[in-house]
Amino acid sequence: MALYVEKYGGTSVGSVERINAVARKVSAEVADGHQVVVVVSAMSGETNRLLALANEINDHPPARELDVLVSTGEQVTIALLCMAFDAQGMCARSYTGAQANIRTDEVHGRARIVDIQGDAMQADLDKGRVVVVAGFQGIDENNNITTLGRGGSDTTAVALAAALKADECRIYTDVDGVYTTDPRIVPEARRLDQVSFEEMLELASLGAKVLQIRSVEFASKYAVPLRVLSSFEAGKGTLITSEENIVEQPIISGITYNRDEAKVTVRGVPDTPGIAHRILGVISDQHINVDMIIQNISEEGLTDFTFTVPSADMAKSIKVLQPLVKELNAHEVVADDDLAKISVVGIGMRSHEGIATTMFKALSEKGINIQMISTSEIKISVTIRKEFTELAVRTLHAAFELEK
Amino acid sequence: MALYVEKYGGTSVGSVERINAVARKVSAEVADGHQVVVVVSAMSGETNRLLALANEINDHPPARELDVLVSTGEQVTIALLCMAFDAQGMCARSYTGAQANIRTDEVHGRARIVDIQGDAMQADLDKGRVVVVAGFQGIDENNNITTLGRGGSDTTAVALAAALKADECRIYTDVDGVYTTDPRIVPEARRLDQVSFEEMLELASLGAKVLQIRSVEFASKYAVPLRVLSSFEAGKGTLITSEENIVEQPIISGITYNRDEAKVTVRGVPDTPGIAHRILGVISDQHINVDMIIQNISEEGLTDFTFTVPSADMAKSIKVLQPLVKELNAHEVVADDDLAKISVVGIGMRSHEGIATTMFKALSEKGINIQMISTSEIKISVTIRKEFTELAVRTLHAAFELEK
Repeated sequence: MALYVEKYGGTSVGSVERINAVARKVSAEVADGHQVVVVVSAMSGETNRLLALANEINDHPPARELDVLVSTGEQVTIALLCMAFDAQGMCARSYTGAQANIRTDEVHGRARIVDIQGDAMQADLDKGRVVVVAGFQGIDENNNITTLGRGGSDTTAVALAAALKADECRIYTDVDGVYTTDPRIVPEARRLDQVSFEEMLELASLGAKVLQIRSVEFASKYAVPLRVLSSFEAGKGTLITSEENIVEQPIISGITYNRDEAKVTVRGVPDTPGIAHRILGVISDQHINVDMIIQNISEEGLTDFTFTVPSADMAKSIKVLQPLVKELNAHEVVADDDLAKISVVGIGMRSHEGIATTMFKALSEKGINIQMISTSEIKISVTIRKEFTELAVRTLHAAFELEK
Repeated sequence: MALYVEKYGGTSVGSVERINAVARKVSAEVADGHQVVVVVSAMSGETNRLLALANEINDHPPARELDVLVSTGEQVTIALLCMAFDAQGMCARSYTGAQANIRTDEVHGRARIVDIQGDAMQADLDKGRVVVVAGFQGIDENNNITTLGRGGSDTTAVALAAALKADECRIYTDVDGVYTTDPRIVPEARRLDQVSFEEMLELASLGAKVLQIRSVEFASKYAVPLRVLSSFEAGKGTLITSEENIVEQPIISGITYNRDEAKVTVRGVPDTPGIAHRILGVISDQHINVDMIIQNISEEGLTDFTFTVPSADMAKSIKVLQPLVKELNAHEVVADDDLAKISVVGIGMRSHEGIATTMFKALSEKGINIQMISTSEIKISVTIRKEFTELAVRTLHAAFELEK
């Protein structure tokens, strides 16, 4: 007998038929002797319907009340799913975030879970009941309703799995696992049976939008085995787990790409202490996320300072840098969003040399020019011209033999 | 400065425009220096939408989950109304039933309020905030969500007014007060400025569907002045209050009618002790409400036992009585639903003689035959043929000069 926490997203509970299908699936697992906690999102479309109502009334609705409003979406789903279990002769019990005692901080709209007391849920499980929990929501220390922000239901599931010491946390979604790269670009892309938390963090943050990054961090912190599976097809999905649990570790796990980055360069900056801080300071004041940062050696006391930001923030970045350029007596600000970032991710890099060499050689053989390079312990990222994205991904996928 | 609890029903918050109108109205009262707690229902149509979803999944949804589901309706309204206050520069704070600490018993779907701790709400009011509470819902001692049943938002408002020692509980609805009778039958019907709790209980239970009867009982028990007003028109409405607060008490307050009663008679019953109990026992076992009960003197040891039930329950009543008729050796069961009940209600009856005489005389002058008579301290009810309903109501309204 195992205890599973299973999360079904908005599409998986998007209609009465699909809610019934989830109930049937979970009922079969309970019949096999397992205990199951189901975490659900709002039915697809429901959150947007509620937000539209709010915006009709107030262009900037108060964050506290927005959470009161949108949290009804998951509450509807938990009730309907319990009714579906009942119709199939199963005993189930719904929990709102408050009833599940999912305590968060006070940041409405993107709260963080600080504690879960799972005693009541465990008691229900031990009575043979299915426990159905509203994802995405919690309650702060003053009993205000909070929400965890986009993708928060994944985090709810992982946090519950940690609190209840579940054997596995299963995230049901519309893809059947994590792939070596985007199958739309490389048809030979292969589903990974296993991947480490660290690799998944790099893969997720680099654009493989399978799992919310915060839920992976949470799973990593509490060592909760996390499995991504399809709601609609049978299959084992991808297990995301601690490095030591992975038996056959490939050198490279995946290739990711991101076409939404832009490069900003401040040219001719005096190479004095504190320059990086001043330049990045005006950017972060605008809440713009900086990704790669590159500063080359200086020449005659001047240097070029380059960083990447989301394409949508390029114009704003240029604008806020202009006054600083004058102040610093720098030459100019130049920017470019005709750019893609390609990353190779794999824990095997730690113990294998020559990964960078293989990567750069493969790209150069196709005539792809590398503009910027940035490395971490388990990934190498390069920026190239956007038009070469697909070619670069296919080339690297083949060079590292990921299809095997 | 006064403290008001104001309840707005589903029609009064049925659209974004109407929610904005409620916020404007309450804001003006706060600007006048008053403290206001607003109790709201689900937007009209929302509860039925949710129930339809439930019934698609389960013909007999579990009562606990039905309450989890439908309670989202009011939760949406409280959030939207607070957003509307915010848009008008007012500070407001929403409370679900759980957050308002409205404790009920465990009877899902028709729970009764057992306690309210109003401290947090009072603190918000004292900070100049409008408090917005979800009507119709509460929480039992195990933190299960409960609902109070149809019309329960009125009860929420009265219970809050009692807990917060409000100066007045105002029920905004689609009529502008309580009338001496149905204005559709008697165009001269007059809005009552004041009516006593006791009279209102008789008027409500007899069919003047302005207020939920339970909320009037509650208001009477805690001596909460209750005012019924129109959401859509200005006016003072009708104040329902304790008898001693009513200065000019008319003898008769109103005439009510009910066309949904049927008369059931068991003929030729042996006039022995326990007969009434046995006959009414089989009826109440079917959860059928009995209204009037009449047993006349016996003749040769046999009597006729007559009572009235809702028309919809007439056939069932006859069916469950047949075996008993055989068992008791009674003659037969006869029934008739071509019946209306007309009642005259007024506290003045206690100190004025001749009310019954005036009533019977007025009806006989129009040739209306009285079939059954039943009296209480403050009302006289008669049953007549259904076709005479309007004529009887108009006749009695004029006979007691209620238009003045």
